[in-house]
Amino acid sequence: MPYFDAASSAPLHPVARQALQASLDEGWADPARLYREGRRAALLLDAAREAAAEAVGCRPDELVFTPSGTNAVHSGMSGALAGRRRVGAHVVVSAVEHSSVLHAAAAHAAATGGAVTEVPVDRYGASAPDAYGRALREDTALACLQSANHEVGTEQPVAAVAEICRSQGVPLLVDAAQSLGWGKVEGAWSLLAASAHKWGGPAGVGLLAVRKGVRFAPQGPADDRESGRMPGFQNIPAVVAAVASLRAVRAEAADEAVRLRALVDRIRARVPELVPDVEVVGDPEHRLPHLVTFSCLYVDGEALLHELDRADFSVSSGSSCTSSTLTPSHVLRAMGVLSEGNVRISLPLGTPEAEVDRFLEVLPGVVSGVRERLGAPASSAAPVSAPAPDPVSADETSGAGESGESGGPGVAGGPEGAGGSAPSLVVDALGRRCPIPVIELAKVFGEVPVGGTVSVLSDDEAARLDIPAWCEMRGQEYVGEQPADHGVAYVVRRVS
Amino acid sequence: MPYFDAASSAPLHPVARQALQASLDEGWADPARLYREGRRAALLLDAAREAAAEAVGCRPDELVFTPSGTNAVHSGMSGALAGRRRVGAHVVVSAVEHSSVLHAAAAHAAATGGAVTEVPVDRYGASAPDAYGRALREDTALACLQSANHEVGTEQPVAAVAEICRSQGVPLLVDAAQSLGWGKVEGAWSLLAASAHKWGGPAGVGLLAVRKGVRFAPQGPADDRESGRMPGFQNIPAVVAAVASLRAVRAEAADEAVRLRALVDRIRARVPELVPDVEVVGDPEHRLPHLVTFSCLYVDGEALLHELDRADFSVSSGSSCTSSTLTPSHVLRAMGVLSEGNVRISLPLGTPEAEVDRFLEVLPGVVSGVRERLGAPASSAAPVSAPAPDPVSADETSGAGESGESGGPGVAGGPEGAGGSAPSLVVDALGRRCPIPVIELAKVFGEVPVGGTVSVLSDDEAARLDIPAWCEMRGQEYVGEQPADHGVAYVVRRVS
Repeated sequence: MPYFDAASSAPLHPVARQALQASLDEGWADPARLYREGRRAALLLDAAREAAAEAVGCRPDELVFTPSGTNAVHSGMSGALAGRRRVGAHVVVSAVEHSSVLHAAAAHAAATGGAVTEVPVDRYGASAPDAYGRALREDTALACLQSANHEVGTEQPVAAVAEICRSQGVPLLVDAAQSLGWGKVEGAWSLLAASAHKWGGPAGVGLLAVRKGVRFAPQGPADDRESGRMPGFQNIPAVVAAVASLRAVRAEAADEAVRLRALVDRIRARVPELVPDVEVVGDPEHRLPHLVTFSCLYVDGEALLHELDRADFSVSSGSSCTSSTLTPSHVLRAMGVLSEGNVRISLPLGTPEAEVDRFLEVLPGVVSGVRERLGAPASSAAPVSAPAPDPVSADETSGAGESGESGGPGVAGGPEGAGGSAPSLVVDALGRRCPIPVIELAKVFGEVPVGGTVSVLSDDEAARLDIPAWCEMRGQEYVGEQPADHGVAYVVRRVS
Repeated sequence: MPYFDAASSAPLHPVARQALQASLDEGWADPARLYREGRRAALLLDAAREAAAEAVGCRPDELVFTPSGTNAVHSGMSGALAGRRRVGAHVVVSAVEHSSVLHAAAAHAAATGGAVTEVPVDRYGASAPDAYGRALREDTALACLQSANHEVGTEQPVAAVAEICRSQGVPLLVDAAQSLGWGKVEGAWSLLAASAHKWGGPAGVGLLAVRKGVRFAPQGPADDRESGRMPGFQNIPAVVAAVASLRAVRAEAADEAVRLRALVDRIRARVPELVPDVEVVGDPEHRLPHLVTFSCLYVDGEALLHELDRADFSVSSGSSCTSSTLTPSHVLRAMGVLSEGNVRISLPLGTPEAEVDRFLEVLPGVVSGVRERLGAPASSAAPVSAPAPDPVSADETSGAGESGESGGPGVAGGPEGAGGSAPSLVVDALGRRCPIPVIELAKVFGEVPVGGTVSVLSDDEAARLDIPAWCEMRGQEYVGEQPADHGVAYVVRRVS
């Protein structure tokens, strides 16, 4: 039963389990109490804090435990922002931060009227340090940057950005959730947040480090615990287990990084060979060792996940169909890469090579099966030109069927198509979800001559990302989007 | 090693331990994911939510799990207050709520300018429903009342207060942390918060129920988990263990309530017989089955706890010397009872009778030992009149020694003493901590004739509570307090 979603939650490390069980007997009492059970609990907590601080690279009194990584990010941001209230309320984040960072920035903006600047990323998902530098302002209270991206694995230039922030006197909060198990975050960061269940610790434990000298004003109701920075009774057995597994994971990290990096390299190389029309995303070099993401043209992400699950592989996806909001992952959007048929693989420590090989055996059949059921066009690196459906008989594949909103033919000569005198086609994919609009585009694309255009009418958010991505993959020209009656017209010009 | 502090944190219930270990294998994955590990985790979470809702007496979709009881209180209050922002920002709480409630109310007041009304309690620590009714206003957004007090065990009239609140259209949040293990909270409450480690569940789990129809607007950054009411990755193994132990504890509750109630009755009856000058506080009838609190005159609470710990008994205290702020418990203050030498005993389920008997054997010697070391006056129900120290030679016991601020004699005829022509004494206890000011008062009290007064100069917060309490216990008249140079003069008139 290969589980390839360590980036969501890693299986509990055996050392964590052992430490948890051992400390259930010693760590259940209130560490603030004066009696022996309390003193024992306090000793465990102190020892865990020291070990965690060493692993993070900070002083023990700079580190508090939180109930989750999300909570660490929220508390870290709100405390740092409040601590610099007099400077201003401007926040800088990268466009590919974890949702906990983006949501905390949005909540701050809503509450204070402060602006949020999202620093864009390149096609690998990396932020450029000079772009961070340009985003900093006189009234910037806080900058945030992840150590490595949680969806595509790309490492961010934290040390360089920290240096720029320091020169401007702006604190930098690093979300190290995905990388802390692999090693310390280098550079002069000011605050650091992480989450234990990402490194094989139990759920219910995050950590927040706030370097001395960083102005920090904890928000919310007062509470004595954790230096006044985190209210609520401490979860000591889980904290002990979390720190024990962090140390255990770090001890394996160097060797496992080499081994898993090679397995991921194999996936990165083999998937495009084995499966047609795949885009492997993220930085091939500057990346987490264990994580790789790719997207498959003409594939429904949810169906792909279900089929992989049936084949015993547990993976996650940033496709819109796997999201509760039916929008593609903001990370893939910010990178401008294909989002349909998206698969993220994040290998847990100790993943056997055979499981990866088995995945590579299974994947091609799974993808082609999903494509077949969707009526996807035959694979080709060139634009699909045959078998082109008769425009008049194209109703059953062109989207009008399920939406029921459009009575006319799905594909028609478009008098309003871009290009004026050049031939144009309109594909009505209103009411159809990813990947149908792209499939419909591909099906008819061969019908327009070079120089002609196809306009895809769609109300699916994924189309905005995936139609340009299709153009990029196919070497066609993405003209742009225009408002349409019940959605948007995405216009593509055939150039070859 | 008798542990008598279940109200702080109960030892992990064997059922909780079992459930935790079992669910570590099934419950570590992300319940929002589509693959089998995620589905298994979601099933566990759903089942736990149903069982918890049944134990609370609400619908499963009304209940979310939180990382702590404190967090449940904070989130419940902030969400309910925000949901009724248009009505107003006034909050009603009892004066003896848990600090998490009082601190959340204070934070709300600081952030919004809304007022907080503290409903007073009687000498048993109970709020009167009609006092709650009088406290409600047109702009009251939320009322809060604990089900039972965490320091003295007194049950609050939740059902009656809930009825009054309902008739006024004000939601009532019940902090059920201390009572949920014993049974459902009756009445038409609107929100309910509780904490698993109080009933033998693991740390890291609280719960918050918000009844349908209650306006509720979760505060802080958005997050999908727990119906958008509690951010962060759920701690499913701990949740499963928490709910399993709640059910197990409830199954034992009826029998254990009878058994522990009898043991507490024994403590309530025997302690005043065995130890002179003790005040047992809290309602003798309408109380938690397992909890009793008493205070010992002329005793240092911290020393008492240490001696009891040496004798293998783990108890807690609301005395000022055991608090980080050096103020007596706000509960004891609100009740107007003695705070020095305070001991809270809260018996875990299954406490053997022999442990209670052993405690009753040990306590008298421990108390008299502490009193002896403090130079406390001999015990007597009447005011101590001998051996009265010579006023001029009273320096070594009257406080100037440690504070170093007062060079004069500790006890002196006071030209400014209350009462004008009546004889008066001034005791200088500046710089001396609880219970010294009261001991100094008692030592000299016999020197003034009936009708005369003693003024105790003190800068210790506990004196404000304990000098009136001493008067009450001794049948003397507490005249009041007056500002003095480095503290306050507490004036007592001898009436017998």
